[in-house]
Amino acid sequence: MPNTTPVHDQIRLELRRGTLTLAVLSALRREQYGYTLRKTLADAGLAIEESALYPMLRRLEDQGLLASKWRTEGGREKRFYRLSAAGVALLPRILDDWHELTRTLDGLFAGD
Amino acid sequence: MPNTTPVHDQIRLELRRGTLTLAVLSALRREQYGYTLRKTLADAGLAIEESALYPMLRRLEDQGLLASKWRTEGGREKRFYRLSAAGVALLPRILDDWHELTRTLDGLFAGD
Repeated sequence: MPNTTPVHDQIRLELRRGTLTLAVLSALRREQYGYTLRKTLADAGLAIEESALYPMLRRLEDQGLLASKWRTEGGREKRFYRLSAAGVALLPRILDDWHELTRTLDGLFAGD
Repeated sequence: MPNTTPVHDQIRLELRRGTLTLAVLSALRREQYGYTLRKTLADAGLAIEESALYPMLRRLEDQGLLASKWRTEGGREKRFYRLSAAGVALLPRILDDWHELTRTLDGLFAGD
């Protein structure tokens, strides 16, 4: 059994959930379809359910940050995703936000 | 006007929202009442509305991570909050989660 409490799990989940969009955009600098994207995220410790991932991909595509196309691979039609030009332009700015946020929190932790 | 787009703002908000519980717990290693807590967070760039902060404080107290007491200061009754013993015990473990998450994301960003 994992050595965590429900409250701890909930706080950890909040933290991870907040970073998922950033993780997805970051992973989609390289073209991937849903299965390999989920595997990339899970391998990094950011497991995400299909029921959460696909709506997020649709939203990010609607927002113009992703582009997708259907292509046949291994005899099956698969939808491949990657950053659009707008996504490529935005990602470094989100990374800057993330790094600023980590500095902010490190400052709070260091304070007393 | 800030140099951001609505989509960018939304992603930034998600990131910040996920860290708010951690920021509040971290700030409440030192006893504070609502006003000074909000100011501590705002000064750190993590502004939070009263309508979001007070329910969060109630939730964290219900979960046993915070203790609060009413005390008169400057002629007014104020509710002061600080970490409970359980909160003091849990905070380092959440900080570990946070640092693990930052390493995970840094790994994703570095990959290609």
